[in-house]
Amino acid sequence: MNNVLVAQSGGPTPVINSSLAGVVLEALNDKDVDKVYGAYYGIEGVLKENFLCFNDVDLDEVKYLKTTPSSALGSCRYKLPKYEEDKATFEKLFSIFEKLEIKYFFYIGGNDSMDTINRLSIIAKELNSNTICVGIPKTIDNDLNGIDHSPGFGSCSKYINYTIIESLRDSFVYDKKSVTVLEVMGRNAGWIAASTCIAKQYCGAPDLIYLPEVPFSFEKLEKDLNEVFKTKNNVYVVISEGAKFANGKYISEDETVERDTFGHAKLSGACEVIQNYIKNEMGITTKGTKLDILQRSGMHAASLIDVEEAFELGRHGFEYAKEGKNGYMSALVRNSSLPYNISYTCIPISDVANIEKFLPESFLDENKTGITREGFEYFLPLIQGDVRIPKVDGLPRHSTIKPSNV
Amino acid sequence: MNNVLVAQSGGPTPVINSSLAGVVLEALNDKDVDKVYGAYYGIEGVLKENFLCFNDVDLDEVKYLKTTPSSALGSCRYKLPKYEEDKATFEKLFSIFEKLEIKYFFYIGGNDSMDTINRLSIIAKELNSNTICVGIPKTIDNDLNGIDHSPGFGSCSKYINYTIIESLRDSFVYDKKSVTVLEVMGRNAGWIAASTCIAKQYCGAPDLIYLPEVPFSFEKLEKDLNEVFKTKNNVYVVISEGAKFANGKYISEDETVERDTFGHAKLSGACEVIQNYIKNEMGITTKGTKLDILQRSGMHAASLIDVEEAFELGRHGFEYAKEGKNGYMSALVRNSSLPYNISYTCIPISDVANIEKFLPESFLDENKTGITREGFEYFLPLIQGDVRIPKVDGLPRHSTIKPSNV
Repeated sequence: MNNVLVAQSGGPTPVINSSLAGVVLEALNDKDVDKVYGAYYGIEGVLKENFLCFNDVDLDEVKYLKTTPSSALGSCRYKLPKYEEDKATFEKLFSIFEKLEIKYFFYIGGNDSMDTINRLSIIAKELNSNTICVGIPKTIDNDLNGIDHSPGFGSCSKYINYTIIESLRDSFVYDKKSVTVLEVMGRNAGWIAASTCIAKQYCGAPDLIYLPEVPFSFEKLEKDLNEVFKTKNNVYVVISEGAKFANGKYISEDETVERDTFGHAKLSGACEVIQNYIKNEMGITTKGTKLDILQRSGMHAASLIDVEEAFELGRHGFEYAKEGKNGYMSALVRNSSLPYNISYTCIPISDVANIEKFLPESFLDENKTGITREGFEYFLPLIQGDVRIPKVDGLPRHSTIKPSNV
Repeated sequence: MNNVLVAQSGGPTPVINSSLAGVVLEALNDKDVDKVYGAYYGIEGVLKENFLCFNDVDLDEVKYLKTTPSSALGSCRYKLPKYEEDKATFEKLFSIFEKLEIKYFFYIGGNDSMDTINRLSIIAKELNSNTICVGIPKTIDNDLNGIDHSPGFGSCSKYINYTIIESLRDSFVYDKKSVTVLEVMGRNAGWIAASTCIAKQYCGAPDLIYLPEVPFSFEKLEKDLNEVFKTKNNVYVVISEGAKFANGKYISEDETVERDTFGHAKLSGACEVIQNYIKNEMGITTKGTKLDILQRSGMHAASLIDVEEAFELGRHGFEYAKEGKNGYMSALVRNSSLPYNISYTCIPISDVANIEKFLPESFLDENKTGITREGFEYFLPLIQGDVRIPKVDGLPRHSTIKPSNV
């Protein structure tokens, strides 16, 4: 038997299910494939033998995955042990592959997941397994090495750019000085925050962008704000959750706001920290929002380019597996930005695993709070096109496929 | 000369500009009308004689208002003084009306704004002014009396229902107990939070809804959560910003989280307060978002019904003014929910001003954390239909009309 197994891992994105649909539909269509399995909750679910068989699922529900956000099979943050320290786990994993006659294993995920698939592809040979392990990229963070951009990033960026363009108009309705702050994801790399230069070009906001790559200080913030206040009354700030002080400490760990009166660790974020500074130290009215999980599930504002590319990366991934590309990741290269043109390819996963791709210096303007034309041209194509989402009663008709414990 | 003046007031909504477009386009089309003015920043702008003349504006920009969120003319929170205590302000106002030959004055706003227009309509007679004052309703809060529902509410509700349906799928990706909290607007009335029963019907979330109308306690919260945990691992909670303890105090004022270590008042909300409780007292992982201004500017997820009704309430408002309905508000009545059918009408503003409409008891289920079928049928029609928004480079093309100081 030639069976297929696919699983999802890491943080969800709006289009990680589109990649899943790409793999599964291509595999179901292949006359050389018998069963197409999905593992619930990533590699943990494989070890627990917690499977779904897509051959038994209504094909429409698989197709609906293309416009269903988040990880339909569930996810995990589990990191495999070191092979030398715990061979048993790997032997178990490959014995499960053997029992299920898994010829192709696909793991849809980010940096950590690519490390998993990289190690499995190496150990497979050592354990004389014939299973071919292929990675399918995903991450809203856009920090995957070896690929022009990551599926999920474009949709996340589009949702955030919409949010800025719309909420900007709310930020200036009163004839009163104010600062509006939007906190976006990006723990170490500032791609998401940087991509708001699209809104900037379009409507003039955000005025200031604070990225993890650029050391943050309250003095600089105050100086930057006062500079903008010279020409306008209402400032719009975007800050990455991972903005850091020069000493490398996240500003969300700032001790002045970290604990409540019980001494409990407070839930706070970069947004809250700088809002408190703006309000208490500068005496200026401020509003703010931390988008949190909304930015990685906002399918209703997804980028069509992103949804299609995620699907094609899944579909091509299946073809690479059939070609025997063990230890490779499905990838894409950009041929040109204007007009936008890409090609699909595959690259050795060892070029991807555990490497974080940071924003290039050349994307930053002189003050390091704005993005250059080069950056803008990189980002703009990625948010193009609107997705037609099937509806029932005016609400999105998502796939009924869900993690097993839901 | 027969001139028209229109202004916007109070908190913005996604469709307050659609009402503005309705008034302005109808007035510009009327052969008996000479000039159509807009006042920037509400009634304050009238007193400062800060005007825009719509006759000089590109007609396309007026039409784009229909799909441009927030208050294009700006807004104010200014409350007129008592007439007996400060006649001068009113004499100034009406002398400005006289100078500009304002025959019809329109104020687009909520409770407070309707109080303004009510008083102006009464004082107009006293000061022998011929200006006819008409109110156009708006508020995402849906707490206006005398009208079936308020323009802005449907779009706000749709945005939030989308947000829940999408982020729900993010809330259950890990095989781990968790509580996801979404804070929505509604200081005194819980209409917005209650309308999330649409998502509940569709996808099972939110599990629990906490409204300002129902006294809140941490004991009840814990009991409610544990009840839901009996059947599922991941709970989704919606809470109104105005949720209150039995003593009437907002839970966002809870002293245990109110101050940072400087003793400064902390920016916090109901979401943060209950998240801290869930994390620290119950030891359960929690994620949360306070939607803040996003829910009142999310035009990209607006309800077509809402956009059209807002426009028609503006357009009809102009006709009521021409009929001499001084001191009236443009309104609508619902004839049936299934199929949805409404009629336009006008009502005396005295029935609206300073009255808050609360959620009916009959909309609440036994535990008061869910909504009855009667409530669901009231809410469902209001979020129907998608709005076609003109685009440039994949981003919304909003009207260029903006407050004067922007």
